[in-house]
Amino acid sequence: MKVLIIGGAGMIGEKLHSALAKSHSGKNPVTEVILHDRVEPRTAFIEDHGFQTRVLTGNFADQAEVRKLASLRPDVIFHLAAIVSGEAENDFQKGWDINGHGTWQLLEALRAEHVESGGTYVPRLVFTSSIAVFGPPYPEQIPDDFLCTPQTSYGAQKVVGELLVADYSRKGYLDGFSIRLPTICVRPGKPNLAASSFFSGIIREPLNGMDAVLPVPDTVRHWLASPRAAAGFLVHAMTLDTSLLENRLSLNLPGVSCTVAEQIEALRKLAGDDIVKHIKPGFDENIMRIVEGWPRDFSAERAKRLGFTAEEGFEEIIRTYMEDDLDIRT
Amino acid sequence: MKVLIIGGAGMIGEKLHSALAKSHSGKNPVTEVILHDRVEPRTAFIEDHGFQTRVLTGNFADQAEVRKLASLRPDVIFHLAAIVSGEAENDFQKGWDINGHGTWQLLEALRAEHVESGGTYVPRLVFTSSIAVFGPPYPEQIPDDFLCTPQTSYGAQKVVGELLVADYSRKGYLDGFSIRLPTICVRPGKPNLAASSFFSGIIREPLNGMDAVLPVPDTVRHWLASPRAAAGFLVHAMTLDTSLLENRLSLNLPGVSCTVAEQIEALRKLAGDDIVKHIKPGFDENIMRIVEGWPRDFSAERAKRLGFTAEEGFEEIIRTYMEDDLDIRT
Repeated sequence: MKVLIIGGAGMIGEKLHSALAKSHSGKNPVTEVILHDRVEPRTAFIEDHGFQTRVLTGNFADQAEVRKLASLRPDVIFHLAAIVSGEAENDFQKGWDINGHGTWQLLEALRAEHVESGGTYVPRLVFTSSIAVFGPPYPEQIPDDFLCTPQTSYGAQKVVGELLVADYSRKGYLDGFSIRLPTICVRPGKPNLAASSFFSGIIREPLNGMDAVLPVPDTVRHWLASPRAAAGFLVHAMTLDTSLLENRLSLNLPGVSCTVAEQIEALRKLAGDDIVKHIKPGFDENIMRIVEGWPRDFSAERAKRLGFTAEEGFEEIIRTYMEDDLDIRT
Repeated sequence: MKVLIIGGAGMIGEKLHSALAKSHSGKNPVTEVILHDRVEPRTAFIEDHGFQTRVLTGNFADQAEVRKLASLRPDVIFHLAAIVSGEAENDFQKGWDINGHGTWQLLEALRAEHVESGGTYVPRLVFTSSIAVFGPPYPEQIPDDFLCTPQTSYGAQKVVGELLVADYSRKGYLDGFSIRLPTICVRPGKPNLAASSFFSGIIREPLNGMDAVLPVPDTVRHWLASPRAAAGFLVHAMTLDTSLLENRLSLNLPGVSCTVAEQIEALRKLAGDDIVKHIKPGFDENIMRIVEGWPRDFSAERAKRLGFTAEEGFEEIIRTYMEDDLDIRT
């Protein structure tokens, strides 16, 4: 099985690449992984994964580039590449160009390849969407059939991507679906431009002996899963029988619902008071406005029934970070 | 007030044009109506409406054309132009090009005009969406917050249009929203390529002494409103205070829910047995498959609360056709 990861140099791409190594020995093993991104991945691809890894750099939103990728005829494509929420909100044009039009061009390139193959090439496409597709007012817990009324450009772009993936799949040009990831936390490495970046920062920076700014009140409740869980979602999505989705090709994934105060208490329990003191309140109206519009809790029943699993609580999320990333130089 | 109707030569455009004449004398009267379409409208624009009517022909999905339209800086834009459902299902590329990309380019042209005006040009945009944005399984009656899972390309294209209109409006580039029209019935004139065309045909053709094919069982239930109601929705949408929509910029409009059997009985009551005999069953699997995926009944509570009104029953829909269109040579 040939696997293409678009956005392969990003944090999730890297975690997925490693997770594929642990899971590739099924009845249809992974033989090659193509990591595609604007930049080369850091280190992970050098390791021996039991399959060949190829690195390609370029802009997936460029038409020639995406045609080249499609012509490789990967069996599975993970589409992880995106302008993140904060950047897409600040740069309207760039967000729509990359997240909207770029994703569309990817699907068009795959359709052209499908046609050229005489209809035999029907790749699995896994599109990573986000809980930013939802908008308030919310019920206490969001059910699987809750409507999409995004209140950010990023969220709107993700819904457009979902709709395109669903229609191209319905027509048989590909076999795709969308998974709406919880906010991924604790992200290793540096803060990014996502408005949700602080959810990782307030855990990661203190555990590394550095101060972290908390831009929102600690009463903020949010929906989270670890990078390890995210990689697990993607590996599970790779071989899911999509007929089980019954024409609703977007899935809310499981996660942990907790408040910032609960997150801080979990950190205190695992790492002590001195570590928690590194968290410094610093209210940021812009971030607060974006986060306010985000959902807080999901039932995620369909995804659980289909075998997707996440952590049971926030302590487990922190422990996952400590096991997988804390000692690795970032 | 300068009004632009994109798709102005279509049946709804024509009805809207006439309805504007009856309603233009408010505190901000209509001074000019620009009818834009691929072809010239038939006759309606010749009449004296109390405002100037200009006719422009061209393809709204062409970038230069839509820039020209935006440069006219209309105060209100009705975006009615679309490849209809049956055609969009048969010609995937054309449907996405026109309904998807074309609508996006219209919004981009309006945004460019907004920027050029220094942010002062913020037109009202009314986007006509459709109940084809929904997909089964359905509850008995669809509530206002039901999710969009379209099962046709046309439906998916309409949701994409809604999302774009909402995001451009949220950013303040325009003041737009989307209205999800019921199936419009009884359409005057000739059958079109919409899969829903027969809903009009089985009333219109018999009333004009011609046979009509019924391609589905008479147990099919559907959601309908008259052309007069559609024009009324659009006129009402022209001046609606969009802040009342509270960031959910798509509205399910009111209509009449009835079965084909009930429609036929209403026709019998108004026009007699001999007229009804013109309806000939002729099962069409393709149409049935599309119609099967369509919703049957809506609460439409928000729209009713906001002052949108439709007919009370199917007899009223037939009477509207008889009053407005039956004696007019088509």
